[in-house]
Amino acid sequence: MLLADIGNTHFHIYDGKKVEHLTYDDAIEKYRENELCYISVKHHLEVKIEKIKSWKNISKEMILEGAYDTMGVDRKALCLSHKDGLFVDAGSAITVDIMEDGVYRGGFILPGLKAYLESYRSISSVLDMDLNDKISLSTLPTTTKDGISYGIIASIKALIDKHSNGKKLYFTGGDGQLLANFFDDAIYNETLVFHGMLRALETK
Amino acid sequence: MLLADIGNTHFHIYDGKKVEHLTYDDAIEKYRENELCYISVKHHLEVKIEKIKSWKNISKEMILEGAYDTMGVDRKALCLSHKDGLFVDAGSAITVDIMEDGVYRGGFILPGLKAYLESYRSISSVLDMDLNDKISLSTLPTTTKDGISYGIIASIKALIDKHSNGKKLYFTGGDGQLLANFFDDAIYNETLVFHGMLRALETK
Repeated sequence: MLLADIGNTHFHIYDGKKVEHLTYDDAIEKYRENELCYISVKHHLEVKIEKIKSWKNISKEMILEGAYDTMGVDRKALCLSHKDGLFVDAGSAITVDIMEDGVYRGGFILPGLKAYLESYRSISSVLDMDLNDKISLSTLPTTTKDGISYGIIASIKALIDKHSNGKKLYFTGGDGQLLANFFDDAIYNETLVFHGMLRALETK
Repeated sequence: MLLADIGNTHFHIYDGKKVEHLTYDDAIEKYRENELCYISVKHHLEVKIEKIKSWKNISKEMILEGAYDTMGVDRKALCLSHKDGLFVDAGSAITVDIMEDGVYRGGFILPGLKAYLESYRSISSVLDMDLNDKISLSTLPTTTKDGISYGIIASIKALIDKHSNGKKLYFTGGDGQLLANFFDDAIYNETLVFHGMLRALETK
C-alpha cells in the first residue's frame, strides 16, 4: 500500500522505502490505479481525488490528543510519529510542534525559507538575496546578505532552542536537512509524517 | 532646521519636537522652501530631490566606525544616537544592530511585521491572519492565528534576547512600540535616527 501526504505545493508519496515528490497531476496520473491512503491539506483538490476509487482519505483518522480543530492534518500526522519530541516541518511554511507523553502541547508557525527570502525581496531590491546556508551563527554578521541569512536562521534556531528543553528534535520537509544542520543531535527523516500515518492506522 | 529620514515607504521629518510621516510627494510639496538636511535610502528619488536648493543630503556624513559599505544610512544614523546599546528599527524591515564603545559590532535583518504577515498569506489562505499583538509568550499557542503571531513575535524576541547581554534596548520605527512592549525596560523613541543625525553633524 502507498501512503500520500498532499501538501500545499506537492504530492509526497511513500512506498515503505522512499519518498517521491510529484506535482498533483503527475501523482494522479502515475498512481490512480494503485491502492493508496492519503492525508490532504489541499481541500479544493478533493473533488477530483474522491473520484479515484482505489484511494482512501484517512485524514479523519489522524487523531491527536490535545490538537486543535483547524490544525493541519500533516502536522497531526508528524506529531503522531513519536510520543515525545519537538517536531519541525520545514516546507512552504515551517511548523514547530511539541509532544509530551503522547499529548500535543502546542506549537507555532514560521514562514518557509523561500517565503522569508521572498518577503525581504518584496520590501526592497537591496534585500533581494539568496540564502547563505553556511552562515556562521557564532559571529554577528556585517554584510546585508549575511544579515538576512543570519536573521532567518538564527531567529528560527533561537526560538526552537528555547523550546527544546532536552527533547529530541525531529526535522522533516524540503528544507528540514538544511535547518537540522544548525542543531546538535537533530534527527532529519523525510518519512516522519508517513510513520505518523502508519501509527494512526495501527492503533485504530 | 528640519531633519528628514527618507525611508522605503515614507518621508519622516523632525522639527526638533515631533516627527511627521509623509508621502514623498507631500513632503516635497510641503517643505521645498524650508532649510532641511536629509539622509535617504531611496536612491531613485535623488534626481528629483537634488534640484531642491534648500535641501542638503548629509548621508555621507553618517560615519560609523565598524560599519560596512552597503549598510543603510538610516541604520548608521540610528547607531550613532548612542555609543552603546542594541538598536531595533521596526519598519518595512526590522534591523537589529549592536554598538559597543562607539563602534558598530554587526547586526541582522528580519522582515517587517507587515511583510511577515504577507509572507504567511502568500503560502496559503489558511495562514492569512492579522497579528495578535497581545499574544502571550509564556504559553505555547494552540490555534493557527496565535501560532503565527507567536512565531513572528517570539522568534524576533528570542534572537534579540540572545544578543542583549545587559545592553540597553532602543526601539524605533512604525512597529517599534508594539515590539518594545514585549521586552522589559525597552526604550521606544521615534526620534533616535534624528538624534544620530544631529550627533554626526555636531562631531564633524
